[in-house]
Amino acid sequence: MTLPDVLARIDADLPEATERLLALLRIPSISTDPAFKADCQTAADWLVTDLASLGITATARQTAGHPMVVGHVDGPQGSPHVLFYGHYDVQPVDPLSLWHSDPFDPKIEDTPKGQVIRGRGASDDKGQLMTFIEACRAWKAVNGALPCRITFLFEGEEESGSPSLIPFLQENADELRADVALICDTGLFQDVAPAIITMLRGLLGEEITIKAATRDLHSGMYGGPAMNPIRILTRILGGLHDDQGRVVVPGFYDGVPELPDTIRAQWQNLAFDHARFLGDVGLSHPAGETDRTPLEMIWSRPTGEINGIWGGYTGEGFKTVLPAEAHAKVSFRLVGQQDPHAIRESFRAWVQDQLPPDCTVEFKGHGASQASQMENDHPLFEKARQSLTEEWGVAASYVGCGGSIPIAGHFKTILGMESILAGFGRDDDQIHSPNEKYDMECFHKGIRSWARVLEKLA
Amino acid sequence: MTLPDVLARIDADLPEATERLLALLRIPSISTDPAFKADCQTAADWLVTDLASLGITATARQTAGHPMVVGHVDGPQGSPHVLFYGHYDVQPVDPLSLWHSDPFDPKIEDTPKGQVIRGRGASDDKGQLMTFIEACRAWKAVNGALPCRITFLFEGEEESGSPSLIPFLQENADELRADVALICDTGLFQDVAPAIITMLRGLLGEEITIKAATRDLHSGMYGGPAMNPIRILTRILGGLHDDQGRVVVPGFYDGVPELPDTIRAQWQNLAFDHARFLGDVGLSHPAGETDRTPLEMIWSRPTGEINGIWGGYTGEGFKTVLPAEAHAKVSFRLVGQQDPHAIRESFRAWVQDQLPPDCTVEFKGHGASQASQMENDHPLFEKARQSLTEEWGVAASYVGCGGSIPIAGHFKTILGMESILAGFGRDDDQIHSPNEKYDMECFHKGIRSWARVLEKLA
Repeated sequence: MTLPDVLARIDADLPEATERLLALLRIPSISTDPAFKADCQTAADWLVTDLASLGITATARQTAGHPMVVGHVDGPQGSPHVLFYGHYDVQPVDPLSLWHSDPFDPKIEDTPKGQVIRGRGASDDKGQLMTFIEACRAWKAVNGALPCRITFLFEGEEESGSPSLIPFLQENADELRADVALICDTGLFQDVAPAIITMLRGLLGEEITIKAATRDLHSGMYGGPAMNPIRILTRILGGLHDDQGRVVVPGFYDGVPELPDTIRAQWQNLAFDHARFLGDVGLSHPAGETDRTPLEMIWSRPTGEINGIWGGYTGEGFKTVLPAEAHAKVSFRLVGQQDPHAIRESFRAWVQDQLPPDCTVEFKGHGASQASQMENDHPLFEKARQSLTEEWGVAASYVGCGGSIPIAGHFKTILGMESILAGFGRDDDQIHSPNEKYDMECFHKGIRSWARVLEKLA
Repeated sequence: MTLPDVLARIDADLPEATERLLALLRIPSISTDPAFKADCQTAADWLVTDLASLGITATARQTAGHPMVVGHVDGPQGSPHVLFYGHYDVQPVDPLSLWHSDPFDPKIEDTPKGQVIRGRGASDDKGQLMTFIEACRAWKAVNGALPCRITFLFEGEEESGSPSLIPFLQENADELRADVALICDTGLFQDVAPAIITMLRGLLGEEITIKAATRDLHSGMYGGPAMNPIRILTRILGGLHDDQGRVVVPGFYDGVPELPDTIRAQWQNLAFDHARFLGDVGLSHPAGETDRTPLEMIWSRPTGEINGIWGGYTGEGFKTVLPAEAHAKVSFRLVGQQDPHAIRESFRAWVQDQLPPDCTVEFKGHGASQASQMENDHPLFEKARQSLTEEWGVAASYVGCGGSIPIAGHFKTILGMESILAGFGRDDDQIHSPNEKYDMECFHKGIRSWARVLEKLA
């Protein structure tokens, strides 16, 4: 029985493991911005080198976008085959002025709640990805080999809609197929309980440009008789929700299931603290659908949000311009059987139908993924859940997730395997925001968690 | 009778006059952006030097913002005293990518419609300001002296709300007061007829910031239950106008007069080409109040416009963020006796009243000026109108103006003098837009126009 030795090794090696994570965090691998393309390649190469140091043969495979890192290592005869997935790309850092330190010069900080690792990607997803690699490193160091056959898959486009993912899975299906996937890109439940996500929302992104006059106009010369695209954009998007907080796009709720009573009961048992959830970010009144609880909204209800808007003069001072165009980025989180392609068409028609004369609209799609539901009666789920419970000393739960991790759906449809989604982020990690961090406790216990999972699966 | 000699001198000197204008256009005196503060001083100094070359003593007077250039020259005993006003500051140049050449590297271009002077400020207002200086230069060259007493006043904050203007006029009232003011910052009527503006709209600017959560949120984690400030902003501003195109802010139309039948009849005689006015900028359907003509809307009706909006992620690609705040710049053009301060208060209350729980709003005022009405029964108005008619060969008209030139109102209330607003811009000058230009014909005939006006006033 080697698990205690592996865990001791993890504890002793934590400073070095942290240094390795800091090195990866220093690479500004922002996938959505073409200016950082070379940095994404650098991050992929760094992972190839790091896996090689564990004796794992890995390569950075070129795609139409950023590389996919794929590595393989054999396990003992008869052991299961798991695929571990994480992503090495990160979100943009703007507004940069709100960061208290350089997002790509990561630091270990002492805070009243304990040590944190501060920097872009610390939690989403480089820190989480490294919990698994470090667990493997400790296993290998103690035992000379890993306890089961493992395939590693690290993506570089998760934060930009994963355009290369489906073709890559299709072209390499035989190489990548395993008994089960392990995905580490999620969080603890209420910051304390380990959790395995079995419901994930889908995501549909749309960018809108509304145009009117052929050039910017002076609002003194034209204000009144000339169409103002910002006015049209605000009028249309201001009407995206009705007074009950429901999205008004026709057919939007087609395929949205009512929550089964059994799941509703389970979720009620979780005693989710709605007041704390909102209070942590300075809010006290739930927005959204007026007849749903916040937990229900996040895990099982679809939403429409405006993620960005811009047009006209946005600098210092004032400029009395009627701009020629105005823009917005809108996204929809999807659940159940909602069809992203049908909703995209319906949304576009809904916008088009509201345009006054002389206005035109252009649309640009940014990703479209359906919601996913895991079949957690697979026996490996229960083994993973027990391992997490043992490490954290708190019962691990099966939960929903408001975010969209389309990879889980693709693994099911393309590779025919279920995914065990377990991660160690906390609600205040500020992922996608300035001053992202990952708690040192989460990094440490995350590594230990995977060591326990590997032992139980093997 | 020296007028023919002066006009001949203007014709002969046009290439040199153009070179002097190009030199002034090369100075990027953007007043609204603090980054260009030194350039505004440079432009003021350039004008002081240029006036000195005419034997006019001028100084660049410091203010809390950019300098005021003031110059004086005596005229013959018994001649009237005129004050000439123009502004040397210019609008910002964004979006820079839409300029076909450097906005501050001005060029003379041959176009199918004739030569144009291309660059920021060519028309608004450096080119127009220089028409008067060049007319004075020719008078001086031919006659050795100017035909009447002239005070020059060049402002450097016209494009940024003129914050220093009122105190400056108040503190220097005795020095600046004249029989009449000449203001050159307007255009030809329908591009062909000289015009003197006797009605000007006022302007009120407001910047709004709506805040919700204490930080940017991930729309997967919080989308639904968390308030999205962009959604609130679009909902409020999308409701700024009713279905008839009227501004819904309470009390907004207090003090808006119905157009007198006599003026309505005059305007109908002008045979304004509504289709061409909109068609020139790619539009065909009048927006705004459904029961008003475009000319009526621009000259005699108030409006509300959104001049800028921004919030969330606006870069390349997509980011599923719920931003902590969203912003807009809104302006109102005012007519008649509308009170800008009362409307500001009413607008702020109207926004505040629509805020949902957990949202806050911050306001920042950007200027507030009432509409102006000139008393054009003053005899100098008719002399100026005749001079313009003679130069252009088309009857000059008294017209309205949709823009806001608050200086005319301040000259009346603070200095007790009327203003003759005459200018030579054309509708396609693209002032406040990329690729601003001033027609060489307008520059040339503008200089000749002022020479004729000076002769008739003297």
